[in-house]
Amino acid sequence: MTEVAMNEITVTLTTDFGEASPYVAAMKGGILSINPRARLLDLTHQIPPQNVRHAAYYLASALPYFPGSALHVVVVDPGVGTERAILYIESGGHRLLAPDNGCWTQLVGAGRSPTVIRVADSRYWRQPVSDTFHGRDIFAPVAGHLSLGLDPRLLGPPASQWIQLTIPEPRVESRVVYGQVVFVDDFGNLISNISRSLLTDPAIVRIANTEIRRWVRSYGEAKEGDLVALLSSNGTVEVAVCQGNAANHLKLGINAPVQITPASVDARQ
Amino acid sequence: MTEVAMNEITVTLTTDFGEASPYVAAMKGGILSINPRARLLDLTHQIPPQNVRHAAYYLASALPYFPGSALHVVVVDPGVGTERAILYIESGGHRLLAPDNGCWTQLVGAGRSPTVIRVADSRYWRQPVSDTFHGRDIFAPVAGHLSLGLDPRLLGPPASQWIQLTIPEPRVESRVVYGQVVFVDDFGNLISNISRSLLTDPAIVRIANTEIRRWVRSYGEAKEGDLVALLSSNGTVEVAVCQGNAANHLKLGINAPVQITPASVDARQ
Amino acid sequence: MTEVAMNEITVTLTTDFGEASPYVAAMKGGILSINPRARLLDLTHQIPPQNVRHAAYYLASALPYFPGSALHVVVVDPGVGTERAILYIESGGHRLLAPDNGCWTQLVGAGRSPTVIRVADSRYWRQPVSDTFHGRDIFAPVAGHLSLGLDPRLLGPPASQWIQLTIPEPRVESRVVYGQVVFVDDFGNLISNISRSLLTDPAIVRIANTEIRRWVRSYGEAKEGDLVALLSSNGTVEVAVCQGNAANHLKLGINAPVQITPASVDARQ
Repeated sequence: MTEVAMNEITVTLTTDFGEASPYVAAMKGGILSINPRARLLDLTHQIPPQNVRHAAYYLASALPYFPGSALHVVVVDPGVGTERAILYIESGGHRLLAPDNGCWTQLVGAGRSPTVIRVADSRYWRQPVSDTFHGRDIFAPVAGHLSLGLDPRLLGPPASQWIQLTIPEPRVESRVVYGQVVFVDDFGNLISNISRSLLTDPAIVRIANTEIRRWVRSYGEAKEGDLVALLSSNGTVEVAVCQGNAANHLKLGINAPVQITPASVDARQ
Repeated sequence: MTEVAMNEITVTLTTDFGEASPYVAAMKGGILSINPRARLLDLTHQIPPQNVRHAAYYLASALPYFPGSALHVVVVDPGVGTERAILYIESGGHRLLAPDNGCWTQLVGAGRSPTVIRVADSRYWRQPVSDTFHGRDIFAPVAGHLSLGLDPRLLGPPASQWIQLTIPEPRVESRVVYGQVVFVDDFGNLISNISRSLLTDPAIVRIANTEIRRWVRSYGEAKEGDLVALLSSNGTVEVAVCQGNAANHLKLGINAPVQITPASVDARQ
Repeated sequence: MTEVAMNEITVTLTTDFGEASPYVAAMKGGILSINPRARLLDLTHQIPPQNVRHAAYYLASALPYFPGSALHVVVVDPGVGTERAILYIESGGHRLLAPDNGCWTQLVGAGRSPTVIRVADSRYWRQPVSDTFHGRDIFAPVAGHLSLGLDPRLLGPPASQWIQLTIPEPRVESRVVYGQVVFVDDFGNLISNISRSLLTDPAIVRIANTEIRRWVRSYGEAKEGDLVALLSSNGTVEVAVCQGNAANHLKLGINAPVQITPASVDARQ
């Protein structure tokens, strides 16, 4: 394994600021002002505005693939300027700075014990701290200091409580699985929260009022325009139109109900 | 402070090319062809096409947070291929390459004396130089050479004149402040040019035909959907809808008139 | 020329994933997991979904400006999970990883002999390999290993056949050139496939039903709103509205027919 000099670590940025606004740039400048050798890496700035649940899905889908040497800065922060805390989190080999709104708890998952520190020592902040842009005034300089090797314990006291998002889990009733769409990607693929382990084979997918009996392994297996079910790259049930856009075709999006019925159960109904 | 090897400096890019076109990539390749160790950093490529005033606002909002070691390349250049000059600018510890269209003068501000050089020596350019893409043919290679430590005085003669944008300034009449919206961010917040120093407390905000009497410190202080006034992270008056989009709600955008009336003055009217 | 340490090479990313999805981030993490010192560089993630022809145009327009030290990873891959191959390509000093769908053959051009290797040895892949996301499971780790100096011949056997896109070429009949729009940039400029070498001077441009007799060298030469013809930065005929958007104005886009008639021929008709 190639080693990374401490002050050259990758600092990733995930925000809901959009690509057009100067807020992202101000944060980048703020990090580089503390550590000009930090390696900045955009993840996305297109989390839908203030959508903490979307941020949670995004982080759980993206961060597990990163090496532990990276530091992830997440600013999806509808509570900025209120008493909500800013947290430094270490868990499963990943390190994050994030607001205490639950955006990171899906990443960590149940049953694991993260190390969490409340970012409280204003010595590492930009002064004066605004009430509306902690990304620039707190997250960025703290990330800069951490990228230089600052001991996270100097940031503030350990935290033992934090906000946890209630992530919708699928439920199973009489062998029928009831879940929902939790993400729509740029191809219009509708990705559900029903994981492979809940599937029987063969099974019938119902998404809103549409029934799908055709399963494929990959998009290229069916003809252009075919509506199919498959396993997403996350291992959950996905509904797709081959070479097309299922979300537009079905006029469905996040929260659309998805139901999986084993063929044997369906036949009896 | 960590030092940065001269040939590893950060070179930022700000353009109106959009994210989808190959023009941004051609510029990145052009810089790396001269200095493969330059650290490229996207600021934005979504300045509205040819909108020099927007670029000026963007740069003034973003660049002050960067360390002096960075070199900022700005290509918002409706005059490309005409006799407009390309300038190298040093001011207040910041270094830029930008077309001579005033996009950088708001950053420098009044009363400061920047060092300005007219980019004229074609030795540092890519040949042949096209008439429509100086970003690729002049800005990129010149930035590459500067990132390797080229003395900027070799780029061309000192400039003593340059285009200055007329930035709309608020005016005060009978203690009422008249300004305008100068930026709308991706959250739909309407940010005016009226700075904190012009405010009395309490004050009434009128934006177009809507009156706002509620001031908050941060978005989280009011209920979802509340229309409020607050101080933006730039220190100017901002109109926002909490957890919502004020621009869509009020159907207002850049140039919308904003008027601040001290409550004591308002009561007398 | 500054040298680049092998493990610090630039790895560029070109995809159709969009900026909002976690797929781009998962790829970045996958590369950094193998080589945390790789220098990741976004080219674009806005290739229109599954549009291999657009990717081909993009790569041919952008990659020639890069130094040979870079490695270009291209994931526009409608055939993911089928038997289509993944290729490593060296040609003209450029190195790519791309699906075998022809997206890279326009870059290489006719008459050149690229070195092509079929990526086949799963030792360098992430396990398990999904059927829908080879970007994360094959392209990213292979790019990571290549950036560490892996001999490409270890990736798999040499390939002697690959898919070639049929790129529409202009034809000339009775001295009239018939071509088409092959790209529309974010300014709405309509860029054709008719290169400078096919032009006589003066000439009349017809795009769909609109005739243009005005040629300029640069956008700034005409008045705002003027419809003009000029040479694009690629050296091909382009139709533009000065300070405006020709695609919106003419309601035309990719594939619109473009016809160039020498004035002397036109006068005789």
